[in-house]
Amino acid sequence: MSSERLIYLPLGGAGEVGMNAYVYGYGKPGKEKLILVDLGVTFPDMDGTPGVDLILPDISWLEARKDDLEAVFITHAHEDHVGAVAHYYDRLGAPIHARAFTANIARRKMEEHGHSEKAVKTASAWPETVKAGPFSVGFVPISHSIPESSGLVIDSPGGRIVHSGDFKIDENPIVGEPFDHDLWASLAEPGVKALVCDSTNVFSHHDGRSESTVGQPITDLVQASKGMFVCTTFASNVARVKTLAEAGKRAGRSVCLLGRAMRRMIEAAVETGVLKDFPATVSPEEASNIPRENLMLIVTGSQGERRAASAQLANGKYNGMVLKEGDTFLFSSKTIPGNERGVIHIINKFSEMGVDVVEGDDRYHVSGHANRPDLDAMHKLIKPQIVVPMHGEHRHLREHVKLAEANRISGVLAVNGMMIDLSGNAPKVAEYVETGRTYVDGSIKIGAMDGIVRDRIRMALNGHVMINVIMDEEDEPLGEPWVEVMGLAETGRSRAPLVDVLEEDLAQFMGRAGAKTLTNDDKLEEGLRRVARQSAQNEIGKRPEVTVVISRLTA
Amino acid sequence: MSSERLIYLPLGGAGEVGMNAYVYGYGKPGKEKLILVDLGVTFPDMDGTPGVDLILPDISWLEARKDDLEAVFITHAHEDHVGAVAHYYDRLGAPIHARAFTANIARRKMEEHGHSEKAVKTASAWPETVKAGPFSVGFVPISHSIPESSGLVIDSPGGRIVHSGDFKIDENPIVGEPFDHDLWASLAEPGVKALVCDSTNVFSHHDGRSESTVGQPITDLVQASKGMFVCTTFASNVARVKTLAEAGKRAGRSVCLLGRAMRRMIEAAVETGVLKDFPATVSPEEASNIPRENLMLIVTGSQGERRAASAQLANGKYNGMVLKEGDTFLFSSKTIPGNERGVIHIINKFSEMGVDVVEGDDRYHVSGHANRPDLDAMHKLIKPQIVVPMHGEHRHLREHVKLAEANRISGVLAVNGMMIDLSGNAPKVAEYVETGRTYVDGSIKIGAMDGIVRDRIRMALNGHVMINVIMDEEDEPLGEPWVEVMGLAETGRSRAPLVDVLEEDLAQFMGRAGAKTLTNDDKLEEGLRRVARQSAQNEIGKRPEVTVVISRLTA
Repeated sequence: MSSERLIYLPLGGAGEVGMNAYVYGYGKPGKEKLILVDLGVTFPDMDGTPGVDLILPDISWLEARKDDLEAVFITHAHEDHVGAVAHYYDRLGAPIHARAFTANIARRKMEEHGHSEKAVKTASAWPETVKAGPFSVGFVPISHSIPESSGLVIDSPGGRIVHSGDFKIDENPIVGEPFDHDLWASLAEPGVKALVCDSTNVFSHHDGRSESTVGQPITDLVQASKGMFVCTTFASNVARVKTLAEAGKRAGRSVCLLGRAMRRMIEAAVETGVLKDFPATVSPEEASNIPRENLMLIVTGSQGERRAASAQLANGKYNGMVLKEGDTFLFSSKTIPGNERGVIHIINKFSEMGVDVVEGDDRYHVSGHANRPDLDAMHKLIKPQIVVPMHGEHRHLREHVKLAEANRISGVLAVNGMMIDLSGNAPKVAEYVETGRTYVDGSIKIGAMDGIVRDRIRMALNGHVMINVIMDEEDEPLGEPWVEVMGLAETGRSRAPLVDVLEEDLAQFMGRAGAKTLTNDDKLEEGLRRVARQSAQNEIGKRPEVTVVISRLTA
Repeated sequence: MSSERLIYLPLGGAGEVGMNAYVYGYGKPGKEKLILVDLGVTFPDMDGTPGVDLILPDISWLEARKDDLEAVFITHAHEDHVGAVAHYYDRLGAPIHARAFTANIARRKMEEHGHSEKAVKTASAWPETVKAGPFSVGFVPISHSIPESSGLVIDSPGGRIVHSGDFKIDENPIVGEPFDHDLWASLAEPGVKALVCDSTNVFSHHDGRSESTVGQPITDLVQASKGMFVCTTFASNVARVKTLAEAGKRAGRSVCLLGRAMRRMIEAAVETGVLKDFPATVSPEEASNIPRENLMLIVTGSQGERRAASAQLANGKYNGMVLKEGDTFLFSSKTIPGNERGVIHIINKFSEMGVDVVEGDDRYHVSGHANRPDLDAMHKLIKPQIVVPMHGEHRHLREHVKLAEANRISGVLAVNGMMIDLSGNAPKVAEYVETGRTYVDGSIKIGAMDGIVRDRIRMALNGHVMINVIMDEEDEPLGEPWVEVMGLAETGRSRAPLVDVLEEDLAQFMGRAGAKTLTNDDKLEEGLRRVARQSAQNEIGKRPEVTVVISRLTA
């Protein structure tokens, strides 16, 4: 028996939907050669991460082992899979492998961050493979909601792993390769140790629907519309954008793409040859001269993002375009949980303009992820010894393990930080690795546990009181404490200005305080903070955050 | 023709779901005698109202006319209809009329705020009526998701208005009166000027389902469960709580109610006689001695509220109860848009414990609002001249107007602040009244437009820098500027502490500043703020909020 082992370690994406980052390793324990599959981001929200621009997985563990990291493989170009490659290239340094469309997107990111585009290598599809240390990795085309998605065949002396990537089983995906049952079945022939598998839609019990089913309903909708027809979807869903544009053409409308991401994605798809026969489009300038009943806009912002085209149209205008009574706006998308408020806000804004909004209608959207029957089919095609669910919250992973067990395959519930030893006959937890999140905040990175964002949340919930006291050369207060407040009511219970009440209470405290307190900054600060919070509690019923500045004059 | 007019003015609830407050008036223009229907609250969120405890309609317009306000009528005891009565009793003073159950809840609120319970008058059901100035108002029982909901018949010399309140058409609502078609049809007999009507579910095209349909599926689910069975619903949905408890009993389980609101609502329903034959329950203490497979908990927190029983169980324990592997948790509720994150968080916490969660399954929940077919039926029963949609976002009101027009009834889209003159043959906008929101923030009320919450949001997004400078008797800086930061990274691009970088840049600015700046607080403050923001932008890529304190020593 060899002392080498085959390991799996999710650093992101297992126990959440977002920031996918899965490590595989082979070698002697602690000395494994490593590869990383995907390096994505997740998005901040006001509830938990106010002011944060982007959330990345914490890669400290991997960085400490960068010399053993042979390569990074990106399954597809969604932000939650490719979004962090450029942010971390300087810390990992390993070459990045992806198929042409994904590589095109990754290179744009590298360029924006000032890294060499050459670090991104274009890979060909299976049966070609990329060697990376003890690993041989092949990109197997699979259908999903973005061009050239791939599952990975990861061969090593420890056995074959099939990493599904994000997928659905779609035999007519409009753009890109149809799902090839024979090809996927053939991967099982040498025997598969583990299927590491997308779990997103494990709770969707109905059959998945093909991308090709939305074309006709959308065409009917466009043809029935009288004013301008505007629609939004994820820019990266190139097949859908094509379907929308073709529906517009069929209805005799000129098509105009609005929003940077929309133009960028279509450009990448055309450049890399994955998108052919995309209908001719008009520029926003040309569009403004076309009668609205002959025009279709395809715009960014299907999730209600504040700066995207849809939100700007809802607030008035974008690129000179203005919607009005009688126009139609179609969300050819699903609202991701957490984004409902933003989307509803936009719908109501359009409603105020008299625009008819079509949203949440399954006829005009299909999911890019495998529903439960397709997950089941995948288990049966690949026939792995083990199923390791990934790409899901805890509830999805747990349910997917149950599904595997119903299929008499052992399932392993591994969340971020659980290193699984896949060697031998039964998978086991080899180690718990510390993982976490890193925030892109302005131009720098901060740790999720640094307390910085926690302080922001506290200021937002409690308001902020700033206290200034000046102590003279004899350690006596020079004048009275000075108070400023931010995010707090101007007056409270007593109807006197809040700052006056605070200043009076603080002055009284200073008057009572003995030399022991007045000469000790920590004691004085603690006392002032306590009095300020109590005083605010009495006056306005809130206990604010307090910052104290003590200035001591020296002779 | 009379110079009196009949007016309708929503101060809350029209253009939003929440804080319902609808004014009706009759009399000479500007001198109308007024009544208010409902006085509810809406709930804050981190996105727009961090730190706020509760949101109330701004009633300034009504307060200025309090001498003309004859009475307040509350249709039912949901917080968005009754939640603000006690907050505003001292400012409006008018008597509050409601049926027994609603009055019971309103009195508890009045008591908590130190107001006399006597201001709340218990009304009997139609055909009895309450006189209020020129109005005669009757409470007509209607089915909804809380006991004793009522529509109102509002008669005045200007004609009859039927105000639907929140409703559904349910002939077997389990608790409370079934919908009585004949009774509602009879209201139309004298001719109805306007139907002011619930719009919440206007986009739900399928037939509504009766409360009575969920009992059997829930019973089946409980019977199939092995460990402890825990379920949550809105505490005020007394019929559902009863259905859940009965399902527990039928499965041979002892039932325990957890959470203050749950016990309070059941208490009110029993006290007022609307709830009969509620199964015997056990206390949490007793429950802890009962084998888990013989126990059912009915708990608060269906919307993922942080302090409710469900969230506390998800985080560990509540009242000594702890969930574990093999238990089942049922959400017998719908997640209100905006609450998804909180609910999903709880589900994943339960998943980590091995608890099976059932959520989003229509078999175990029905809506309390009329779907489109029921709205249509209501139009046809009441046969009004005009339909005025209420209780909905703009998109709901607009769609409801379309439905009315499809029924050949004129529809009026009136949002908060639009005063509609219902006299004569065609409704018209009489006036635009300024409306808004008032925040309960700690122990006081603040205006939504006061800028206080805006400042909190800015601190949360941008962080906060505090600058202190001390100027001596000759208007020269005494020492260098002192900087504190909150919610910002400790170090940035230069790797030096951020406060050091800021202090150095500010000291340089002070060194360069002339007497004109140094002697003028406004100029000095503006300069310091500008430099601090630019310096932070260079260093960490963020432009923080800045507070400047200038202390001038005097001789």
